[in-house]
Amino acid sequence: MQNTFSFQLLKKSAGSAARLGRLQTTRGAIDTPAFMPVGTQATVKTLTPEEVSQLGAEIILSNTYHLYLRPGTEVIAAAGGLHRFMNWERPVLTDSGGFQVFSLSSLRQVTDEGVQFRSHLDGSPHFLTPERSMEVQGVLGSDIAMAFDECSPYPCSYEEAVAAVERTALWAERCLKVSLPDSQVVFGIVQGGVFPELRSRSARLLTSMNFAGYAIGGLSVGEPKPMMYEILDRTTPLLPEDKPRYLMGVGSADCLWEGVRCGIDMFDCVLPTRVARNGTALTARGKVVIRNAEYALDFSPIEPGCSCYTCANFTRAYLRHLFKAGEILGHRLLTIHNLHFTLTLMKEIRKAILADTFESRHEEFKARYHSAKEL
Amino acid sequence: MQNTFSFQLLKKSAGSAARLGRLQTTRGAIDTPAFMPVGTQATVKTLTPEEVSQLGAEIILSNTYHLYLRPGTEVIAAAGGLHRFMNWERPVLTDSGGFQVFSLSSLRQVTDEGVQFRSHLDGSPHFLTPERSMEVQGVLGSDIAMAFDECSPYPCSYEEAVAAVERTALWAERCLKVSLPDSQVVFGIVQGGVFPELRSRSARLLTSMNFAGYAIGGLSVGEPKPMMYEILDRTTPLLPEDKPRYLMGVGSADCLWEGVRCGIDMFDCVLPTRVARNGTALTARGKVVIRNAEYALDFSPIEPGCSCYTCANFTRAYLRHLFKAGEILGHRLLTIHNLHFTLTLMKEIRKAILADTFESRHEEFKARYHSAKEL
Repeated sequence: MQNTFSFQLLKKSAGSAARLGRLQTTRGAIDTPAFMPVGTQATVKTLTPEEVSQLGAEIILSNTYHLYLRPGTEVIAAAGGLHRFMNWERPVLTDSGGFQVFSLSSLRQVTDEGVQFRSHLDGSPHFLTPERSMEVQGVLGSDIAMAFDECSPYPCSYEEAVAAVERTALWAERCLKVSLPDSQVVFGIVQGGVFPELRSRSARLLTSMNFAGYAIGGLSVGEPKPMMYEILDRTTPLLPEDKPRYLMGVGSADCLWEGVRCGIDMFDCVLPTRVARNGTALTARGKVVIRNAEYALDFSPIEPGCSCYTCANFTRAYLRHLFKAGEILGHRLLTIHNLHFTLTLMKEIRKAILADTFESRHEEFKARYHSAKEL
Repeated sequence: MQNTFSFQLLKKSAGSAARLGRLQTTRGAIDTPAFMPVGTQATVKTLTPEEVSQLGAEIILSNTYHLYLRPGTEVIAAAGGLHRFMNWERPVLTDSGGFQVFSLSSLRQVTDEGVQFRSHLDGSPHFLTPERSMEVQGVLGSDIAMAFDECSPYPCSYEEAVAAVERTALWAERCLKVSLPDSQVVFGIVQGGVFPELRSRSARLLTSMNFAGYAIGGLSVGEPKPMMYEILDRTTPLLPEDKPRYLMGVGSADCLWEGVRCGIDMFDCVLPTRVARNGTALTARGKVVIRNAEYALDFSPIEPGCSCYTCANFTRAYLRHLFKAGEILGHRLLTIHNLHFTLTLMKEIRKAILADTFESRHEEFKARYHSAKEL
């Protein structure tokens, strides 16, 4: 498959760093700013590929760590790659496994060579290196692969953050030397924790290498939101304007607006799908916790005016019943609503940038969202 | 809603008691012999109403016992009935709660008045009588309500079976005196365990009352299949030819063929949906246990030639992965396949009756099914 990857910057917002773009991959185009639903184990939880696509997702994220452990590369290679395995024809971005190795696995030991760890599934020992991560992503055949990085936790000492920045740069160079399928491009990841000068150093190191795009990693890992916004404000301008910028692990409405304001083009997060399965619906006026007794006799939709399948067909009272009764359909219906909410928000954000109303719409959103949270 | 209930007998098979019919209800027609998927808690587990309908289901069954306990009649009454609550516009048959009271609840005490029992959910005490069961079914607003009966277990003494037959008749009379919504009709239930003479007595008692249809209850409760077939062979001819006959709780392919052969028009069973969630797919050649290691690298569909959504889009290897990884999509996809399998089987049975090939097709099925089971 010949690679046709490109990023076109279509418009810059007048009053902020927000920007409208279009990412072209071999398997299709992605309008940016874009949100990528997460399909950790080769499925966006509870949904079929058709549903994900119909909800407006143009790209999904899948997890190298999980797929490497189960079903394993042998199965996915034999299937002809991840797209064919899961029957999703549109673009896929795979993370490198770095974040999961640091957050999920046990007994990990990090050296410059790589990470020795034990599987969270069965305790079996594994050794993941930058080279191995890229090889695995090559087998998965994602359209965008991520460089293998060391993600600093929060809180984290300055010295530890320095070490992660240096190691991430070392590993990034090694990742770029690995031969990948023609259809695949690689994004580098900027680390540096909550230390602006380390973010600058990491951005400088990474942008000196020729990645197809750049991600900001190690945010939304527990630090206060204002701190995240400040780092974003300072770091995003250090990334090349002509390449896509991806903020990893961020997906709440307020953070999506702020990320776009700082000039981010891509986001991913388990939040919309994960909270759905816990019975929480996202709306422009804050969260609806559907199990609450107040909804027992509420025959209105989750979000009046919402055009999603769930809101068009089912009431809060019914959804509450499904969750109280432990019915899978409830998980599906809230997942549909939450992805619709998030993907529609991105569409509105793109429209606003195009119409030069991004800043005023952002202010409106904040007023509505914050007053709702006080209710 | 004016009631337009009717049953039209379209054709009788030449070589057996199999018959083709059409059941007309206020909310739509049902071609018989028909299989009714079970939506215990106001949802056919894992599926949306559209999916159930697209799979070819013309009627579903829902459970009075479960809905009475949760969400309760207050919620469903306020929703405007079960159809609106769950957004299913086609016919619904509700069971009476009798079977569940006897099989699920604890500390039950049966008198001629009714059944005192404790909820399997929270241990709360309840008293269900024939009148109360019909009232609850009236609130649910099902198209077909079932009379409240006493279902004998297997094994069961002759004396106990006699008592259940007498009490079921007593209760049936009381059920018929309850005023119901115009859109609703009531079916009576023949009991009698595995004792042919008690089945005859129960059939005589019930058919002397004017029910809109007749069910055979208390079979498929643990007795050997040949015993069930014998009871069916003897009991079905005792039911009025011009009214629909419903065999409760039966849904495996071999039993559906046998039931139709004996002259049954309607079936319900949790089997296709329940085994799907355990990872078992139904096929014309027997069961496929999708977790089995032999499917890890099997990139064929569950059932080659099957036209269901699952078989058209996903491989055994992928389905196995979903089940191994505990992914809900696996439950959905096997539920779709199993309901497609069962509903398509009913369609083939109807075609065979129409084409006068029912008996030869039944023989073919048996040869294929039994040789497969020996593999």
